[in-house]
Amino acid sequence: MPSYSAPVEDTLFLLNDVLGYQDHSELPGFADATPDLVEAILREGGKFAEEVAQPINLSGDQEGCTRSDDGTVTPPKGFKEAYEAFCEGGWGTLSADPDFGGQGLPHSLAVSFNEFISSANMAFAMYPGLTAGAVAALTLHGTDEQKQTYLPNMIAGTWTGTMNLTEPHCGTDLGLIRSKAVPQADGSYKISGTKIFISAGDHEMSENIIHLVLARIEGAPEGTKGISLFVVPKKLIGEDGSVGERNGVSCGSLEHKMGIHGNATCVMNYDNATGWLVGEENKGLRAMFTMMNEARLGVAVQGLSQSEVAYQNAVAYTKDRIQGRALTGPKAADKAADPIIVHPDVRRTLLQIRSFNEAARALVLWTALHGDVSHRSPDEKARTASDDMMGLMTPVLKGVLTDTGFANAVNAQQMFGGHGYIAEWGMEQFVRDARIAMIYEGANGIQALDLVGRKLPANGGRAVMSFFNEVGTFVKENAEDEAMQPYVEPLKASLDHLQQATMWFMNNAMKNPDHAGAGSVDYMHLFGLVGLGYMWAKIVKVVNAKLADGAGDKEEWLKAKLTFATFFMERTMPETAAHLARITSGADTIMALDAEAF
Amino acid sequence: MPSYSAPVEDTLFLLNDVLGYQDHSELPGFADATPDLVEAILREGGKFAEEVAQPINLSGDQEGCTRSDDGTVTPPKGFKEAYEAFCEGGWGTLSADPDFGGQGLPHSLAVSFNEFISSANMAFAMYPGLTAGAVAALTLHGTDEQKQTYLPNMIAGTWTGTMNLTEPHCGTDLGLIRSKAVPQADGSYKISGTKIFISAGDHEMSENIIHLVLARIEGAPEGTKGISLFVVPKKLIGEDGSVGERNGVSCGSLEHKMGIHGNATCVMNYDNATGWLVGEENKGLRAMFTMMNEARLGVAVQGLSQSEVAYQNAVAYTKDRIQGRALTGPKAADKAADPIIVHPDVRRTLLQIRSFNEAARALVLWTALHGDVSHRSPDEKARTASDDMMGLMTPVLKGVLTDTGFANAVNAQQMFGGHGYIAEWGMEQFVRDARIAMIYEGANGIQALDLVGRKLPANGGRAVMSFFNEVGTFVKENAEDEAMQPYVEPLKASLDHLQQATMWFMNNAMKNPDHAGAGSVDYMHLFGLVGLGYMWAKIVKVVNAKLADGAGDKEEWLKAKLTFATFFMERTMPETAAHLARITSGADTIMALDAEAF
Repeated sequence: MPSYSAPVEDTLFLLNDVLGYQDHSELPGFADATPDLVEAILREGGKFAEEVAQPINLSGDQEGCTRSDDGTVTPPKGFKEAYEAFCEGGWGTLSADPDFGGQGLPHSLAVSFNEFISSANMAFAMYPGLTAGAVAALTLHGTDEQKQTYLPNMIAGTWTGTMNLTEPHCGTDLGLIRSKAVPQADGSYKISGTKIFISAGDHEMSENIIHLVLARIEGAPEGTKGISLFVVPKKLIGEDGSVGERNGVSCGSLEHKMGIHGNATCVMNYDNATGWLVGEENKGLRAMFTMMNEARLGVAVQGLSQSEVAYQNAVAYTKDRIQGRALTGPKAADKAADPIIVHPDVRRTLLQIRSFNEAARALVLWTALHGDVSHRSPDEKARTASDDMMGLMTPVLKGVLTDTGFANAVNAQQMFGGHGYIAEWGMEQFVRDARIAMIYEGANGIQALDLVGRKLPANGGRAVMSFFNEVGTFVKENAEDEAMQPYVEPLKASLDHLQQATMWFMNNAMKNPDHAGAGSVDYMHLFGLVGLGYMWAKIVKVVNAKLADGAGDKEEWLKAKLTFATFFMERTMPETAAHLARITSGADTIMALDAEAF
Repeated sequence: MPSYSAPVEDTLFLLNDVLGYQDHSELPGFADATPDLVEAILREGGKFAEEVAQPINLSGDQEGCTRSDDGTVTPPKGFKEAYEAFCEGGWGTLSADPDFGGQGLPHSLAVSFNEFISSANMAFAMYPGLTAGAVAALTLHGTDEQKQTYLPNMIAGTWTGTMNLTEPHCGTDLGLIRSKAVPQADGSYKISGTKIFISAGDHEMSENIIHLVLARIEGAPEGTKGISLFVVPKKLIGEDGSVGERNGVSCGSLEHKMGIHGNATCVMNYDNATGWLVGEENKGLRAMFTMMNEARLGVAVQGLSQSEVAYQNAVAYTKDRIQGRALTGPKAADKAADPIIVHPDVRRTLLQIRSFNEAARALVLWTALHGDVSHRSPDEKARTASDDMMGLMTPVLKGVLTDTGFANAVNAQQMFGGHGYIAEWGMEQFVRDARIAMIYEGANGIQALDLVGRKLPANGGRAVMSFFNEVGTFVKENAEDEAMQPYVEPLKASLDHLQQATMWFMNNAMKNPDHAGAGSVDYMHLFGLVGLGYMWAKIVKVVNAKLADGAGDKEEWLKAKLTFATFFMERTMPETAAHLARITSGADTIMALDAEAF
C-alpha cells in the first residue's frame, strides 16, 4: 500500500525563508497569515491529506465511479464522507472572499494545501478543485445577485461546481462550440447541447452542482466572438435560496479513462436547461480565460503532486528492498543483499525527481505569490509587474511541471521493478493519474504556443524582459560569491541559452510564425529549466546564510538541499543546450513534407 | 477504434537495400530466404497481424484474463481462435530448427514478423513469444531426449512455454531464489516454490504448457552458484508422447497489472511438481543467460512495436481532426478548421516518433542479422565478430527502444488531446502496454549496468572498439560526399561524445565503479543515439544512390526518408552532448547523501 507524508517543513522553509512571506504583510489577508497560523494550517492540511484523502486513493482508483440507469452518479466508497470532512474543516474557504464566507488568506497558501491533497488523492482533490475554478469565474464575472445566490454555498462546499467547455468535436478550438442558448422572456436562457470530459460533472456528494457552461446565443457571430458563459444549476434554486427541482441537465454516461477513476468524468447532456448569462453576451471566452491562470497553476500543482508522492514511495521501497550488492562491496553485510538505494543509478533516479520537486514547489509558490500581489497590492505598478510574471510563468509551469511530473512518476515506478507494474503497489496509479495533467486545461503543446505566441510578445516583451532582468541581476550579484559559483554559473549559461532562443524567435518568427511553433515546446522547457535553476540558486543562498549562522539540528537537512541543487545543476541544466539547438534548427524540416508522407 | 498497417515496404527496404540480406546467402537458411519468399512472408505475416491479432487487441485489454475457482485461466475472447490460426499458419516455425519441424529461416526474418504481431496485439504476441524463449533454452541446453519430447510440439505451437525466474523477494538478484528441487530415485526432481509475474503462465489455449523453472537443488551452494534450470510440464507426458495427468503446478492468482491485460500474468505455485534438470546442475543461470540476448531483443522490438502502432494512429487522427487554423493562414478554407497536422508542434511530435522508428527498426534488424551470423556462419572470425556486436547492442536496444518507445507512445497519445485519455480510442492502452517493456527481461537500469559493467570491458573492449571502428570508418569514407555531410557531421560529433564518455569511464570507473553506475543509463542512451544515427546515415546513402539511379514512383517515398533523417540529426542527436555532460559529472554528488536524507 502506498503512503504519503505532506512536505510541511519544506513548504514552510520556502514560504518563510526563501520567498519572504512575512514581507508581504501589508497586503490584504497576509497580515492574518502569521507564521504560526501558516504553520498550523499546513500541519492540519497535511494531516487531512494524509489521514482522510490518502487512505481512499487506491481503493477509489480500483472501484471508480458508477452511474445508475436513472443517471445518478456515485463516487467510490468513502469519497462522500471525506468530502463532508473537507467541508467541515473549511478547506474550501482558505483564500475565498470573506464577503461570502471565505477566510481571505493568501491564494499561495491554498496552493500549498492543494499540493498536499492532490498528492494524497488527485481524483478526490478535483471535486473541490473544480468548485474553486467556478467560484473564481463567478467572483470575477457574476452579478451581485449571482454571487449572493451561488458563492456562499459553493465556498462552504455544500454545492460544488464544474466547467463545461469541451464538446465532442472541439476542445482547443472553442470557436467551434455548438451548444446553444435561447433567450427567454424572464431574462434566463434555455441551454441545449452535449459537453464531454466534464470533471466532477455529476455525483451525490453535494446538495447541488453549479455548472458553468459555454454556449452560443441564437444568432451570435460565428467563431470565438459568439461564445457566452452561463451558469446552470443542476437543481433550480428558489427565491429563498432553497434547492428545488431538477434542471434539464444530466450525465449521459461516464468516460472510461486511463486514470483519475475516482473522479466522475461525465458526458453532460443539456436539454433546454435553464441558465443565466455570466458576464457579457459573446464575451464568454474572455470570462473563461481570466480565470485560466489560476486553473492552470492548479494543474501544474497536480504534476508536482504526483511526482512528490511517487518519489516518497520510491524512496521507501529502495530503502526496504534488498537485492544484489553495492558496486563497491556489501553495505549491509548482515543481510542477504543490500537495499537497492546503495546503487548509483537508483540514487540518480531519486535525485532527479527530488531535485525537480523542491525547485518546482518553489517556482509554484513564487508564481502564486505574484498572483496574490497582482490581485491584492494597492500599488498599481506592483500589480502590473506581478500580473506580467504570473501570466508569463503560468504556461511554463503547467507544461513543464506536468510533463516532468509524469516522467518522474514513471521513473519512480521503475524503481519497483515488476512490482511497479502491479496495481496493489499504487505506483502505476500515480503514472495514470499524472498523465491527464499534461492534457487538460489546455494540452501542453497549447501552453507552449500560449507562451511563445502570446505571453512573449505581450506589451513589447515586457514580462520576459523583466524575468531576464531579475535572474540576470541575481547572477551578477552573486557572481563573486565563491560558494554560489557552482550554482550561478550553470544558471548564467542556461539563461544565456534562453536569451539566445528568444532572440532567435524575434529574428525569425516574425517572417515565419512556423519557426515559433516548431520551437515552442523546447522553448517552454528551456524556460522552465531556467526558472527552476533560479529557484535552486535562491534556495542555496538562503541555505548558505543559515548554515553560516549555525543551523543546529537542521544542519544536515539544509546541507542535503545543497546536494539536490548541485545535482540539478550537474545533471538537469545541461539540457538547455539541446533545447537551444533544436529551437534554432527551425521549421524548415518540420514543414517540408506533405501530410501524406507521414 | 485504433488500426494498424504492417510496415512491409519499410522492412523490405531495410532487409534488401540497406542491410544486404541477399549477400548472406551462403549462410544456412539464408539461401531459402529469397527476395520473393521474404516478401511473401512479410506480406502474409503483416496480414495475419492486421486481420487476426489486431482486431482483438482493444477488446482483449478491456476484458482481460479470468481465473476460475478451480484455477483454470481463460484468456480474452478470440485469443484461442487467433492462436489456433497462428499455429495453422506455422508462424512459430519460421526460424526454428528444421530437425524439430522448424523452417530454419533467418532469425532476423522472425524478428520482423515479431514486430508486426507485437504492434497488432502485444499481449497476444507474448504467448508464442514466451514459447520461443523456452524453445531456445531447450535447444541450447536440453538433452536429445528432452528436445525430442518437447520441441516438435512447442515449435508447432500445440504446446506453449514459460520462463519462471522471479520470486516475491527476488527479481534482479536471482541468487536469492528459494524454490527448491529434491532429487528423486528416477532421476527426476520434485520442485516446490512460488514464482511471480509469470507471463502466459496458465491458459487454455494450448494442450500443454512447458515451464522452465529456476530452482535450488537441496544442498546446493548459496547464491547464484546454486541455481539450476528445470523443465516442468503442466501436464505430464507419457512414454508415447501423449499428454497425461496434471503435474503439481498451478496458477495461484492472476496479477492485476497496468497493461498487457490480454496476457495471463500468473503467480505460479509449484508443489512437489515433477521436473527434469536442463543442462548442468547449479549452472542454471548460465543456461538462462545464453538465451537472454534473443529474449531481450524481443522486448526491444516490443518498444518499437508500440511506438509504431501509436504513431500510425496519431498520424491518422492528426489528418482527420480539425481544430484551429495554421499559424500561416487557413489550409483547409472549405472546412470550419484545419486538420491539426498543419501545426508545426504536431509535426515535430510525429517526426520525432517516425524518425526514431525507422532507425530503430534498422538497428534491430542489423543486430538480428549479426545474431544470425554469430549462430550460422562457418567462419569462426565472423561468428565471433558478430557475437561481439550482438552482445554489445542487446542491452542498448532493450533499454533505448523500450524507454523511447514508451515515450513515443505517450507523445502519440498527446496528439489526441482528451480523447487520448479515453479507453475507446486505444491510445492509452499502447502507453500502458509499452510500459512493461522497460521493466521485464531485466529493468532498463540493469541493461545499462550490463552494458557498462560487462559488455564494455569484455575481451579488453574488443566489441566496442569494433563498433567505433565501423562507425568511424563510415564517417571517414563519406566525409567528402557533400550530400552526406548533413548526416555524417552530426554522427561524427556524437560518436566523439560517445568515445569521450567511454574514455572517461576507463579513466575513472576503475578506481571507483560508482562512476560507471552513475553514468550508466546516460551512456546507454548515448550509445543508442550513435547507433540510430549510424543507421540513418546508412539509409541516406542508399536513398541517395537510388535517387541518383532514378527511383520512379518511389521517389517521394525515398525523399521523405531524407527528411526523417535530417530531423533526427537536427532534433535528436543534440542530446548526446547532454548525456556526456551528465556522465562526466560523475558519482560524487550522487553518493554524497546518507539514505536517510532522501
